[in-house]
Amino acid sequence: MSSQMRRITLARRPSGMPVPEDFALKTGPLPDPADGEVLIEVTHLSLDPYMRGRMDDVKSYAPSVEIGGTMVGQGVGRVLVSKAENFAPGDTVTGMTGWANHAVLPGKEVRKLDDSLPPSTALGVLGMPGFTAWTGLRKYGQPKAGETLVVGAATGPVGSLVGQLAKAAGLRTVAVAGGPDKCQLAMDTFGFDAAVDHRAHPDAGSLRKALAAEAPDGIDIYWENIGGKLLEAVLPLMNTHGRIPVCGTIAWYGGMDDTADRLPMAWRSILVKRLHVTGFIIFDHWADFPQFAKELTPKVAAGEIAFLEDLAMGLESAPAAFISMLTGGNTGKQIVQIG
Amino acid sequence: MSSQMRRITLARRPSGMPVPEDFALKTGPLPDPADGEVLIEVTHLSLDPYMRGRMDDVKSYAPSVEIGGTMVGQGVGRVLVSKAENFAPGDTVTGMTGWANHAVLPGKEVRKLDDSLPPSTALGVLGMPGFTAWTGLRKYGQPKAGETLVVGAATGPVGSLVGQLAKAAGLRTVAVAGGPDKCQLAMDTFGFDAAVDHRAHPDAGSLRKALAAEAPDGIDIYWENIGGKLLEAVLPLMNTHGRIPVCGTIAWYGGMDDTADRLPMAWRSILVKRLHVTGFIIFDHWADFPQFAKELTPKVAAGEIAFLEDLAMGLESAPAAFISMLTGGNTGKQIVQIG
Repeated sequence: MSSQMRRITLARRPSGMPVPEDFALKTGPLPDPADGEVLIEVTHLSLDPYMRGRMDDVKSYAPSVEIGGTMVGQGVGRVLVSKAENFAPGDTVTGMTGWANHAVLPGKEVRKLDDSLPPSTALGVLGMPGFTAWTGLRKYGQPKAGETLVVGAATGPVGSLVGQLAKAAGLRTVAVAGGPDKCQLAMDTFGFDAAVDHRAHPDAGSLRKALAAEAPDGIDIYWENIGGKLLEAVLPLMNTHGRIPVCGTIAWYGGMDDTADRLPMAWRSILVKRLHVTGFIIFDHWADFPQFAKELTPKVAAGEIAFLEDLAMGLESAPAAFISMLTGGNTGKQIVQIG
Repeated sequence: MSSQMRRITLARRPSGMPVPEDFALKTGPLPDPADGEVLIEVTHLSLDPYMRGRMDDVKSYAPSVEIGGTMVGQGVGRVLVSKAENFAPGDTVTGMTGWANHAVLPGKEVRKLDDSLPPSTALGVLGMPGFTAWTGLRKYGQPKAGETLVVGAATGPVGSLVGQLAKAAGLRTVAVAGGPDKCQLAMDTFGFDAAVDHRAHPDAGSLRKALAAEAPDGIDIYWENIGGKLLEAVLPLMNTHGRIPVCGTIAWYGGMDDTADRLPMAWRSILVKRLHVTGFIIFDHWADFPQFAKELTPKVAAGEIAFLEDLAMGLESAPAAFISMLTGGNTGKQIVQIG
């Protein structure tokens, strides 16, 4: 047991991709737990892409790390001192320890692990990344047997479980990974049906061709970890009624300084704000028309619903009225009265 | 009754915004209905933004109009000759007549209208545009009392009903329309709580400020008819868990030739393919963690789920391991082993 607490702090806010100088190692005396708290000796610390966002001073879904503050993160370790109910020295636990070799946390924010599996699994496949894969695929991916799924960062802790769960559900699974070794790993270790090396395809068009070859029936679920070139490659291959759970946009974490391209801003908004963006075409919904007519017709007849019509006279006026409508020249519903 | 059939055809495919020369008027003899068909004298023709898409020769949710073919569209009119069951001369009907003064349609594709309301309402508030508003708001907008809705093209047939239905559901409704007259109309005729004139704000930043002033609690539902500058203005104002039904992107119908901006391509894909794009942050879902752990732990223990860990040794290695991970330098879940 070290008698010093060592922690890695945020020395300054990164500009784009972080560099080592953005971090600092600080040492100090071991903290004492107060009533209800435990002192933990950290054995394993999780590193996750979301931490990049915490280094910025922008409004997001979680507070930023302060300059000089300990970098956030989940760890596992052993309880050294317990002043909390239900914990005893020697217990294996996990919690938001930060990047540090020791942490004091309230007992209610700490979870005890059983010792039947390596404790580090609580940071990966059985921790936040695994839970992310399971939750997002089930709730927002809605996989159906026979469909095709594409996932980026496919050998990472999220992507590799997304692929395995989708495969078990009867989908064709296509991995996207960086380099031939990771592509082989995706297929050999994680059971993907195919793998595409994004590094072999410097532009979206070339990457799209490679994906199309491995997804001959189109893509039903694109699990979005990446953004950037992969998103651009995938979108034209998506099937009707496809689903895109937006879990991360790591391609843009290093910055998105090309302001002519508004896609990174939009995609980041969807992620950070947990937006539900749904395209719909009314022609899919005709079965509901009788219910609509039944509900709305009496309201229109009673004058409870206002409507406006903009009448153009004569069939010949249709092209000009149409062109004008496309630039907002009409007021109300554009109709051509004929004859 | 005219003895000639007149129709407006697609003379050539437009490049960007259509011009009158893209259309042609053709005349010919009245067609004869076959068994099961009716001959309709069209009295009113609907003009709708979706028709712009049909003029292009690109894969979309519906076939393109052929060069020389009649422009598609819904009309209402009177039956002149019926060879279909359930229709008689003089019936008021609606169907996909095209841009023409007469049409022959199969009886099963024609809907009889009662005469208690003006027949043109079947093209607007009680037709496809009204049905679009009602369906999209209910299914994808999911309005809740007290929320704020923003809708573009707010005096149009879709936007004006979206606003009224949302207002009736207890939402604050903010119209976006072009020019002071339409803004006044949105409030006076359609009951919007506020209206913002997009023409008074040439850039997204200025438009965003004006919207923020009228949506002081943020935006919960953005009904997307427009795209472009309005979308850019709205996204940063969206509240967490907001909904964006993507109904149209008229700002980009005239073309999206700035290939540096990938947002139009992405948004059009969402619309045309009816994609469900959902941002999610796992921290919202912790309540499901016990179910995840119960399902996955035995599979991991049994070796049915593969996982990989990439161990960096020592707390001091965390920054470099983190930086490497952000560019794909790790293989498997990145963990720092401490002590």
